[in-house]
Amino acid sequence: MIPDSIFAKRTERMGASAIREILKVIARPGMVSLAGGIPSPQAFPMDRIAELASTVLDNHGTAALQYGTTEGYRPLREQLALYLATLGIAAEPDEITVTSGSQGLLDNVAKVTINKGDVIAVEAPTYLGALQAFTPYEPTYVEMETDDNGVIPASVREVIETHRPKFVYLVPTFQNPTGRTIPLDRRKEIASIAGETNTLVIEDDPYGQLRYSGEFVPPIKSFAPDHVVYGGSFSKVFAPGIRLGFNVAPKALREWMIKAKQGVDLHTSSFSQALATEFLRAGMMENHLPRIIELYRPRLQAMINAMVRSFPASFTWTKPEGGMFVWAVGPDGFDATEFYPVATEQYSVAYVPGTYFFAKPGTGVATMRLNFTMSDEETLAGAVETLGGAIRAFLE
Amino acid sequence: MIPDSIFAKRTERMGASAIREILKVIARPGMVSLAGGIPSPQAFPMDRIAELASTVLDNHGTAALQYGTTEGYRPLREQLALYLATLGIAAEPDEITVTSGSQGLLDNVAKVTINKGDVIAVEAPTYLGALQAFTPYEPTYVEMETDDNGVIPASVREVIETHRPKFVYLVPTFQNPTGRTIPLDRRKEIASIAGETNTLVIEDDPYGQLRYSGEFVPPIKSFAPDHVVYGGSFSKVFAPGIRLGFNVAPKALREWMIKAKQGVDLHTSSFSQALATEFLRAGMMENHLPRIIELYRPRLQAMINAMVRSFPASFTWTKPEGGMFVWAVGPDGFDATEFYPVATEQYSVAYVPGTYFFAKPGTGVATMRLNFTMSDEETLAGAVETLGGAIRAFLE
Repeated sequence: MIPDSIFAKRTERMGASAIREILKVIARPGMVSLAGGIPSPQAFPMDRIAELASTVLDNHGTAALQYGTTEGYRPLREQLALYLATLGIAAEPDEITVTSGSQGLLDNVAKVTINKGDVIAVEAPTYLGALQAFTPYEPTYVEMETDDNGVIPASVREVIETHRPKFVYLVPTFQNPTGRTIPLDRRKEIASIAGETNTLVIEDDPYGQLRYSGEFVPPIKSFAPDHVVYGGSFSKVFAPGIRLGFNVAPKALREWMIKAKQGVDLHTSSFSQALATEFLRAGMMENHLPRIIELYRPRLQAMINAMVRSFPASFTWTKPEGGMFVWAVGPDGFDATEFYPVATEQYSVAYVPGTYFFAKPGTGVATMRLNFTMSDEETLAGAVETLGGAIRAFLE
Repeated sequence: MIPDSIFAKRTERMGASAIREILKVIARPGMVSLAGGIPSPQAFPMDRIAELASTVLDNHGTAALQYGTTEGYRPLREQLALYLATLGIAAEPDEITVTSGSQGLLDNVAKVTINKGDVIAVEAPTYLGALQAFTPYEPTYVEMETDDNGVIPASVREVIETHRPKFVYLVPTFQNPTGRTIPLDRRKEIASIAGETNTLVIEDDPYGQLRYSGEFVPPIKSFAPDHVVYGGSFSKVFAPGIRLGFNVAPKALREWMIKAKQGVDLHTSSFSQALATEFLRAGMMENHLPRIIELYRPRLQAMINAMVRSFPASFTWTKPEGGMFVWAVGPDGFDATEFYPVATEQYSVAYVPGTYFFAKPGTGVATMRLNFTMSDEETLAGAVETLGGAIRAFLE
């Protein structure tokens, strides 16, 4: 047997994954899971995928099966440049890098920037997968305060000036876990702060295209191109299983990121990249997306309506204009982790206790993340009403 | 502009990539490249791929597009268990992990084991991509001596006893860069040493199936299952562009590797995994492989024959029974890096100077790695003869 001494010190911080344990129950028969963070398979373009795969072989041939460059398949980067322009991001193909999902970007940027003990500024709460990507590089997290409009610029500035973080990590649009979107004026202010303090911002945007109401808000990247890494993903608009993300980073950073990525996976799947190329060429970012939006919009509405009907008056929750999540906040004294076994075992409804999304342990104990993409409206309404009733009973 | 101070200390060791610079010339018109390390596109099953893709959609449906588990797609791991048994490796599906290429394994194992300054034992020479995967974790390399039969067990033992490495990294079969294969008796001896000294061995085996002559030699893993991580790949037998590797690791190590991988890419492409599942189910590991072998066998022979005809008597070279590379060793005083611009600019033949495959800078200056998979026999024979003549002229 290999001795335990073989493990690197960094594993000490990678160990405790209480969330893995609590999520094991969601596979139980009869469970309605609001705990997921994944798209509905109904959102996948199953009627077009065979044609896309066939076009890949016709148009890309052996290139779809061969090794490729670490920075990404050029035809895909050309299509991505056109797509990014529609978001207000000016990027040449040679400024774009393809990664293995958004996760690949997060590991990548952490690897080339974080020394043990360096400060990383994160929203409170933030995306759990980002913490999982950053933590092996042993940073210190400092949280930035948020309100209903996302991160508060004054807190961003204070954290930067006090702690000089290596970077500020944000999910500005339909955030995971809250569903909140940072409005335009705050984005401009954050861009200014990044410029004034010469601070790197990671703008993680996997959900931005899933807008069910309200108006498009331009990325922070468009206001501070030299200080922001903008990351996008095909996971929510096409399919997560192809593991395809992309980013636009400042030049010097991009060069190191490519070197680091070469050591990690050489490059991202050529076949996935060719599929995404044809997805974009076929105009599916425009013509498939409305189907996803029409699928999810009534689900979000059904969840919110059921919360209004059934959740105790002591609860508040976000009213997202898009994305995949609603964030509920209970009263002082409500512990969503303590309630979790009750909800799952007695009521067969699962969710994620919100405390797991805070970098600082023990905060957000009264919060819950509720996903609305994985069930139809009727199932969602039923599960949320059951959950609301269960919370009332639990609080009595 | 982002300040240079943003970069992590580990980047200092990731910087110098002289090999990237020298390989830029291989794209020049008219160049015959013996520098590659990639399969011939003629080796890809282009006549079967459309059918495989179609079967993937029929048999796996939305699972091929959805998020999957970090350890890998279960139907693939079931097929891999059957395949591994044919190599003499007993592994349940739950002992197998899928990675994004073999490279993903190397980053993965490095991440969970290497503290800055830890010793890693590598062959002299070794696979360059492994050094690129390990180096960001800031190990110290100690080289193990090799001869025509690969790594010398006495050197393995001495390095282990003197330096207590975190692991010993080996490519035992048709090694990159030398093409050498460690024979059975040495494998058993290395397995014994690993067991006696309780040392982890990484057995990287991407080329093992590409045997053109001689007899199969069982993996070291089969003799020391508790001390060896065995890693295989679909890159050389199916297609590298799908970025698919797999491994069997000791249990405690596997658990940490899965946690680390989750932070890096969540999981490997589901579509790639479903394609590989169908590749194995269709028996293509048995019925496609002979076509690859028939393609490469005469190329290796053509290269060796041309070397016999044209290389100076002061050169020696390996006589591989498989794989993708021949390793040439010139006389004292021959500097393959100094000769490189002559070969590429005056003779339009490229190769890789062997010194880049040594962890210790400045060693192996007289060596060259020659790839034979990317050109047909006639082209190879011509390029090798040109190279041989150029070396003779250079040495005069």
